[in-house]
Formats: sequence, structure tokens, C-alpha cells
Amino acid sequence: MKRFLSRQALADLRALQDKAGRNAQNAFLIEGFKLVQEALQAQFPLQAIYFAGELPESIKVVLEQTSRVQPIPVLPISLTEISQITKMPHPEGILAVGTMSPCLAAQQEYAFPAIYLWEINDPGNLGTIIRTAAWYGIRQIWLSPGSVDPFNLKVVRGAMGALFQVKIRREFSAAQLLDLVEHQHIRLGVAEKEGGVADMELPEPWVLAFGSESHGVPAAIRETAQWIMSIPRYGYGESLNLGIAVGIILDRMRRKRDR
Amino acid sequence: MKRFLSRQALADLRALQDKAGRNAQNAFLIEGFKLVQEALQAQFPLQAIYFAGELPESIKVVLEQTSRVQPIPVLPISLTEISQITKMPHPEGILAVGTMSPCLAAQQEYAFPAIYLWEINDPGNLGTIIRTAAWYGIRQIWLSPGSVDPFNLKVVRGAMGALFQVKIRREFSAAQLLDLVEHQHIRLGVAEKEGGVADMELPEPWVLAFGSESHGVPAAIRETAQWIMSIPRYGYGESLNLGIAVGIILDRMRRKRDR
Repeated sequence: MKRFLSRQALADLRALQDKAGRNAQNAFLIEGFKLVQEALQAQFPLQAIYFAGELPESIKVVLEQTSRVQPIPVLPISLTEISQITKMPHPEGILAVGTMSPCLAAQQEYAFPAIYLWEINDPGNLGTIIRTAAWYGIRQIWLSPGSVDPFNLKVVRGAMGALFQVKIRREFSAAQLLDLVEHQHIRLGVAEKEGGVADMELPEPWVLAFGSESHGVPAAIRETAQWIMSIPRYGYGESLNLGIAVGIILDRMRRKRDR
Repeated sequence: MKRFLSRQALADLRALQDKAGRNAQNAFLIEGFKLVQEALQAQFPLQAIYFAGELPESIKVVLEQTSRVQPIPVLPISLTEISQITKMPHPEGILAVGTMSPCLAAQQEYAFPAIYLWEINDPGNLGTIIRTAAWYGIRQIWLSPGSVDPFNLKVVRGAMGALFQVKIRREFSAAQLLDLVEHQHIRLGVAEKEGGVADMELPEPWVLAFGSESHGVPAAIRETAQWIMSIPRYGYGESLNLGIAVGIILDRMRRKRDR
């Protein structure tokens, strides 16, 4: 097997599988043609692009345009090396390393509308939610302590480039949220199983909190909320998937504004 | 390791991992407490329940009620055996075998509203869509040839009991759909990236067709449809996840009816 990466380079890239390694390097993995292309088009800061074989024309074109502003090294890699890094069985043959910090909201940098996710632990769900939130023009996504890391490869893949468009805030506690709501006059809505029908005007700036499918948000958040909203059920079932619920509530809120 | 199942019984259960085995046995696997409980509560026909350890009170109560109508054998199993059958690393310790045919719509048994999914291949997506469809009172889900099997363990898990509420039709071709629309005066809607805003009345009976996120439905279906509908974008992104799109469109259609 041909090796392109030094032992150290491979170890550094493999360290990006884990949250600790990503935090230490301020970097995360971006895998696949479509995602790398979206990162380039969004002029998202990439530290390097690793490619197995010949770089396709579509990527070259975007890369050339981007590189006038910010030159990005393109380095050779093998498919086996990509698999070792991503643990994916069938790599497409392209891998980029993105800088993490531009995705993160600075401590006092708030933008609205925002959504707050309480202890979200399914990476596929979080990826889909980030993608959906970007579609509905949500500007920041705040994650409670105990949530899955948003730079997890599965989240990045599920977000389909939306990570390059919205800002993320990690380890944002209920106390911080409530302090913000109280002192900055931010409106807080909570989506719950038992609430009023989600069909109301929410004057901006607002943040919408979503809990887990089974346990909801902590009581302190629910009690502070100006709106508790639910999705009416027209058939059978105990609840909706969290990602679906986020999509439907955001659609209901955005649509309200249209009329 | 203690073995409870005969070699043949284990082989029969393991065969249910695959579509061919499920079809041959007219049976599928239902794993986990919540799902088995939902099957019992829905009086869904179960061939057997396998349990590791002592059956919990909550299941016993439902089982006794159900068994008056239909006695269900409860058999011992080990956690290791469950893992061998489901390929899941951390089994909850309960596994049931459901009869497949009650989930399937008979050839001439149509009920509306219905949704038609074209070449859906992600089992998690299909499970979530079945769950969402049941929530919105969809009565049948029709799957095109080339779709993932709805009795795949991941689909069953994602559907969260909704499989016991809606009926599925497999291998339903575009030609069959179009024949039905033409001869039975069924109204056909298609959800597409480029269409009118999904905000219209659909008089029943209707069926809504969803294609893949990237390729949509075949041209013949699109050309026959009375409605082509889209979800407006309020921010960034190329498309929504298919499950999210199904949820939002169904919500928009159901909500329209409420007013």
C-alpha cells in the first residue's frame, strides 16, 4: 500500500475524530466532494485539502477562485489513509481540514433568531437540525452542556454545508440562557409535547428551545418561556422525531410571518 | 455462556435480519421494551416474545390483556443471543417476532390519504417518515421498487410503533401509481424542489409522492401530478432532508384543512 502521509500527519488527522483532538487543533474534518466544494464556495477557512488521485475540474475551478484570497495546500492521500482517518468504509477520496473557530459564536456575539437544543445526543439528528435551521434563516444554534459535539464527522456530514452558514455556541447552560432572556429582552419560546398550537407571532429577537423527545427542557426554562408551543397530532403516535419537530415548528413560525 | 435457543431457532431468528428471510417466514423482528409494548397494546399479531431474565410488570400486564384474545409464547433468551440476532451491541433484553402480512396493504386495499416514496434507501429516514406519516393520519405508505425494506430492523426502530398503525405497500411501480390515479380518480401531488408553495387545499382522496433529495420523482409522475409543491426557503441551503420535507409538507396540508 502506498503511503502519502507521515506517521505524525496521519496521527494528527486521526486525532480529529475526537472532540479533544478537534479542540486541541482548532480543526475538524470535512469529507466528500460536495461538502468540500460547499466549504470552498462559502470561502470557509480550510487548512488543507487531501486528495486521492487527480483533483476533479469542478473542485479545481472553485479552488483557484478561493486561492486568490487564501491559498490552500492540496496534498496527496490514499483511500486507505482516508478510511483510517474517517472510519468510513467507502471514502469518496477527498478530505479537508476546516478551522473550527469561525463556526463558533464569540462569547458576546449573539444573533437572532436562534435555537437552543437541550442535551441533544444523536449526531444525525443534530446535523439535520443544523441544515434545517440554516434553511429557515436561523443565525445561531446554541447547544447545552451534555450535547453531542457539532464537529463530529456525522454531524458535519448531516449538516450538508450549513455549518458554514450558521454559528454554533457550545456548552451554553440553562442559567446563561435565562440570564440572557432576562437582561437582553430576548423572547424565549419552548417546543413541548403539551403546549399551545404553534401558530403565533414571535416578534424578533427570539430564541426557541427544544428538549429531548422524551424529557423536554428543564423546568426553569419552561417556566421562563413566553411561549410553550406544540405540534397538533392528526393521527397516531406519542411524539415526533426531534429533527422533524424542529423543521415543522420553524416552518410554522416563518410562514406566520409571510401572511 | 448459557444458551437458550436451539441452533435451528437461532438460525431462524437470524434469518430475519434479511429481506429474503423475512419474506420466507412472513415475520420481522421487534426489539426493545417500548416497541414490544406498543405492539402488544395495538394487539399486533406476535409469534413469540423472547426475554432475557424476568419479564417486567409493565409488559406482563399488557401481555395478559392481549393473551386473552391471542396467546403469545414467552421464551427465554440471553443478551448474547439477542446481539447475535439483531447485531446491536447493547440489547435491552427483549425481542419479539411480529407477523409481517398485517402491516401490508392487500393488492386492492387502498386507503387515503397516502404517500408514495420513490427509491427511498436510508432506513433511518424511512422509519422517521413512517412515524411522521402516522402522526399526520396518513393511512398507507407506498414504496417504489428499489426502496429499502420497511421491515429492516432500523426502519422498525425508527418508526417507533407507527408500523402497527399504517399499512405499507411494497414494490409499487410508477405505472401502477399512474394507473390508479387515472382510473380511480385519485388526486396526485408531488413534492419537488421547484414547485408552487405548498399551501393549497387537496381534496381527498389524495396521494403525495416524494422523490430522492437529489433526483426527485420520475418525469412521468411529475407530468401526471395535479400539484407540484415546494417548501419555500427562508435562509441558506440546497435542499432539506427528505424526512424533514415530508413532515413539513404534511403539516402544511393538514393545517390548511384546519382553517
